[in-house]
Amino acid sequence: MQRSLPDQPCSVARTLDIIGDRWTALVLRDIAIGIARFDAIQGDLGLSRKVLTQRLNDLVEHGVLVRVEYQDNPPRYDYRLTEKGNDLLMVLLSLQQFGDKWAYDGEPPIAWRHLSCAQISTPVACCDHCGEQVRPGDAIPERGPSFDDAAAPAVGEALDAIAAAFA
Amino acid sequence: MQRSLPDQPCSVARTLDIIGDRWTALVLRDIAIGIARFDAIQGDLGLSRKVLTQRLNDLVEHGVLVRVEYQDNPPRYDYRLTEKGNDLLMVLLSLQQFGDKWAYDGEPPIAWRHLSCAQISTPVACCDHCGEQVRPGDAIPERGPSFDDAAAPAVGEALDAIAAAFA
Repeated sequence: MQRSLPDQPCSVARTLDIIGDRWTALVLRDIAIGIARFDAIQGDLGLSRKVLTQRLNDLVEHGVLVRVEYQDNPPRYDYRLTEKGNDLLMVLLSLQQFGDKWAYDGEPPIAWRHLSCAQISTPVACCDHCGEQVRPGDAIPERGPSFDDAAAPAVGEALDAIAAAFA
Repeated sequence: MQRSLPDQPCSVARTLDIIGDRWTALVLRDIAIGIARFDAIQGDLGLSRKVLTQRLNDLVEHGVLVRVEYQDNPPRYDYRLTEKGNDLLMVLLSLQQFGDKWAYDGEPPIAWRHLSCAQISTPVACCDHCGEQVRPGDAIPERGPSFDDAAAPAVGEALDAIAAAFA
């Protein structure tokens, strides 16, 4: 049986529905650094007006961007990140960090300066309970509130095996 | 001028080259939770053998997975994450957290238990210098060691504008 992707109960897949297109990620990157007007984005990325229009419309529809008029005659708009869009930026930051390390050998094109400590920062994942850094292997997956064993039986079995191994 | 994506000096785009395909993300999710043999992955995800073979080969070629023989007659393999693959898991975690919040309304299919504190954990990004949580807007982008103004002049101008605004 060939299942279609939207059947997968997976938060990762849902996020990739928004961000998985490479142009979309670059459009968001541009808007986040202030390249927020249609012509400016188009000029920077060199993609077609048609593709850019479609990507921006998708992001507005997903609630990631809002369109704000900055001139009324003729009407012209720029794009701003919503709260959801800002959360998505944090996802982009993690994509960037991986690429910085593995594709740019730690010599990234863009660095981030943390305003409160004024240092160049490479944020790490920390537990929201104990504050300790969470590295791969430091946490184990288990059924969350909306897990559906009927929809993903093999995943359920795998989670049981992990629970047994760490019991 | 229509530029092709690989010209974009962007760590985000480089990471999406590996992870942007939705099947690939699900394949990695499966391997991370111990569904690591070809037939098991195929059974869980219901994708075609041809597509799965191709995605696994790509991940091995990217250095994200290694193929390990677990039976020699006939030869059978399972797939394990490399160090690079484990780093990619942290990216998947951030994709998952965004989807948990925005697509599953905080009621996720999968939860993570932090082994050292035994709590269900939703890791947050923390500055690797001062340890403080880094929220959207808490850090500003600037030129990194491999930034190329000639390749991305509009990005360079945007970074100058941000630097001026926060000077």
